Amino acid sequence: MTNFSKCNVSFEGRVELHEKLSLTGAEVSFNQLPAGTGVPFVHAHKQNEEIYIILEGDGKAVIDNQTVTLAKGDCLRISPNAKRQFFAGKENSISYICIQVKENSLTEFTMTDAVVE
Amino acid sequence: MTNFSKCNVSFEGRVELHEKLSLTGAEVSFNQLPAGTGVPFVHAHKQNEEIYIILEGDGKAVIDNQTVTLAKGDCLRISPNAKRQFFAGKENSISYICIQVKENSLTEFTMTDAVVE
Repeated sequence: MTNFSKCNVSFEGRVELHEKLSLTGAEVSFNQLPAGTGVPFVHAHKQNEEIYIILEGDGKAVIDNQTVTLAKGDCLRISPNAKRQFFAGKENSISYICIQVKENSLTEFTMTDAVVE
Repeated sequence: MTNFSKCNVSFEGRVELHEKLSLTGAEVSFNQLPAGTGVPFVHAHKQNEEIYIILEGDGKAVIDNQTVTLAKGDCLRISPNAKRQFFAGKENSISYICIQVKENSLTEFTMTDAVVE
């Protein structure tokens, strides 16, 4: 494992970073749904918490039958066993980042995990 | 723990999601450095892999004394013990997401962790 890795993405279409960057603690994907479309299935997870960040556009998520409106700047945490499905708006596409991490895996962060010179 | 949580961020200035969303597997922060400025210290981590996503602008990172140019769409993985420092460009600010996760914590992801209905 080298000390760092780098790639470039366009924020358009589906891109997965796990293999591109040799990630070990997360999968990070970029996703875009055209206007009027949605992910064609409902899904949940076995172990992983998901974090969604809306980059552009608008739409909605249905989480355990509850509808959540989504617009640029909205951020969501979804528990592993929650059933979720994402949709673009009727007139606008939606672009978002999805981060998968193992639930309860983070122990220290920022100042308690940092070594500052 | 509820099945989901939501907040909205402006992609301007520093915002940390861990507390806002009750994250358990990551810290996610939004960061913006004005043109001509940089983070005023070098840092590394004890346990956490960091993933950076450049949202807007340009700049550079210095990682273990190697300079890496940064522009919109660039994504970086940085190993915990690598020494890093981020800078905006001389004429442009830089906005980026930083994701902290515990190195080697992800075991399954996407199709192997998903439950599809």
